[in-house]
Amino acid sequence: MKKHAQSICVFAPATVANVSCGFDVFGFAVDEPGDEVILTLREEKGVFIKAIHGDGGKLSLDPDKNTAGVAAQSFLKAFASDAGVEIELFKGLPIGSGLGSSAASAAAVLFGLNRLLGHPADGKDLLHFGLQAEKVACGSAHGDNVIPSLLGGFVLIRSYDPLEIYHFPIPEELFCTLIYPNIEIETRNARELLPTSIPLQTAIRQWANTAGFAAGLCLSDYQLLSRSMVDLVAEPVRAQYIPKFYELKDTAQKAGALGSSISGSGSTVFALCRGKDTAKRVCDAMSSLYQNASISFKSWISPINSEGPRIVNLESKNQ
Amino acid sequence: MKKHAQSICVFAPATVANVSCGFDVFGFAVDEPGDEVILTLREEKGVFIKAIHGDGGKLSLDPDKNTAGVAAQSFLKAFASDAGVEIELFKGLPIGSGLGSSAASAAAVLFGLNRLLGHPADGKDLLHFGLQAEKVACGSAHGDNVIPSLLGGFVLIRSYDPLEIYHFPIPEELFCTLIYPNIEIETRNARELLPTSIPLQTAIRQWANTAGFAAGLCLSDYQLLSRSMVDLVAEPVRAQYIPKFYELKDTAQKAGALGSSISGSGSTVFALCRGKDTAKRVCDAMSSLYQNASISFKSWISPINSEGPRIVNLESKNQ
Repeated sequence: MKKHAQSICVFAPATVANVSCGFDVFGFAVDEPGDEVILTLREEKGVFIKAIHGDGGKLSLDPDKNTAGVAAQSFLKAFASDAGVEIELFKGLPIGSGLGSSAASAAAVLFGLNRLLGHPADGKDLLHFGLQAEKVACGSAHGDNVIPSLLGGFVLIRSYDPLEIYHFPIPEELFCTLIYPNIEIETRNARELLPTSIPLQTAIRQWANTAGFAAGLCLSDYQLLSRSMVDLVAEPVRAQYIPKFYELKDTAQKAGALGSSISGSGSTVFALCRGKDTAKRVCDAMSSLYQNASISFKSWISPINSEGPRIVNLESKNQ
Repeated sequence: MKKHAQSICVFAPATVANVSCGFDVFGFAVDEPGDEVILTLREEKGVFIKAIHGDGGKLSLDPDKNTAGVAAQSFLKAFASDAGVEIELFKGLPIGSGLGSSAASAAAVLFGLNRLLGHPADGKDLLHFGLQAEKVACGSAHGDNVIPSLLGGFVLIRSYDPLEIYHFPIPEELFCTLIYPNIEIETRNARELLPTSIPLQTAIRQWANTAGFAAGLCLSDYQLLSRSMVDLVAEPVRAQYIPKFYELKDTAQKAGALGSSISGSGSTVFALCRGKDTAKRVCDAMSSLYQNASISFKSWISPINSEGPRIVNLESKNQ
């Protein structure tokens, strides 16, 4: 029994940020893929990353240079400065895939530490630590990955100062198809591609679409949602880095998707679909396109995840 | 009986466009004020403006230079090229007030002509003619006045090409207070004040707010609506032309308004309120501010008008 109280295994979900027209303001969590961490309290003070699996050796074990480590250190500094924790990280999420890989690791650690240490932090604290970790990982404290990964759901970040998050109602039949072409894109670099100013007329079209998209979610109006999935700002700039992006988009639409765009800063492409069958059909069609072009890829189908991180049975993990 | 079929009197409502964050994309109609027209069919072909009342002599009787005349001519050209019509216009709306004065006149004429001539045009045609008239009146075919004046309700113009209009559900207790400081602002000039491009970060905050505002309307979430009423684009540029704008805004907020901003390109200021009593309190507070500063003004309180133009009993008009 003592061992259980000293260790915890947590899964935190992948997230789609920059959801079409909602660049920097819309984000949602999916059921899979995701990252898992095993956290174990230890006598020695501080944060220790014991091992990272599934990253191909890309991530640092130095807790200052790893989003999971940064998140854990912020947490301990604020709430348990005498505590020590060991982290074992299982990357289910490809790095640089635009699926919120750094955010999911941070979310899993923050959720797990808070459980292990008897809930000293509230939700706001966790979000704050999560944003700090994102700043280290991506160069900007954007929250459209770490917030849905920590809280689940489909969120609007209406304001950063003060931080204000709104959870949209999730239309019952909304599913997401993800396809990742095994290409790593650094968020930091992808952000630098964007212009610092945009034409007012472009901005007006974009905010008409975010309003339409929001109304579509709130009223389960799938057609309005579909028509509003137009991104005039980030997608046109970033599409060139994703193999066969416009063909993929066209394929998704023909297979019945409500719309598709780049997840985060790519290279994953997401499609929103009405119903699991359509999501499957869209996934098959996009997969065929990549197969025929000999592009290696991974794909997933998922509803919108509304719970955020969850505890995983440690014993099943150790088997 | 014959006389009734030859003449019609129509009221069309004032409208609030550029609703806070929703510059160029949100617009709504109010129950008052509004414009009225009496249309009378005549033998001679063409459009004749018999008289305009309440404009202080500012508007031209030349149908080519008057939004009511332009709208009527477009209509006749498309659907009744042999017909003739005489227009008598009663301006209930102050000109250059930001309340869609040109749009209300055009809407009243289009709705009335369509009735008089046996409904040859559909709603799409009327919108098209209305947009043409706005182009003549304001220098741009913006639809956020003429569309709600013709259709009623609270609309999102999601796209102009093709034209796509979405009617938001209207929260039951939503009221609007209007205060007009007797200053004329030309829409054409007010548009020229705006920058042609804006910082991406400003645009992002604005489209977060239009999404929040849309969700607030759809779910009758008055607090979300309130927090989302932030305009970072047009209001900061145009506020200087409206007497005591920021004091007025502050007064409205303290009196309980959900939010306030400039109606259209001004000079009218609108406040959205929850409940008629609050709208009245807000109106009183804003009125006191202007009274104490010896600024002459007009004010109105209204729910959102959901019907658009309506037929007025001609006999009551002639009394």
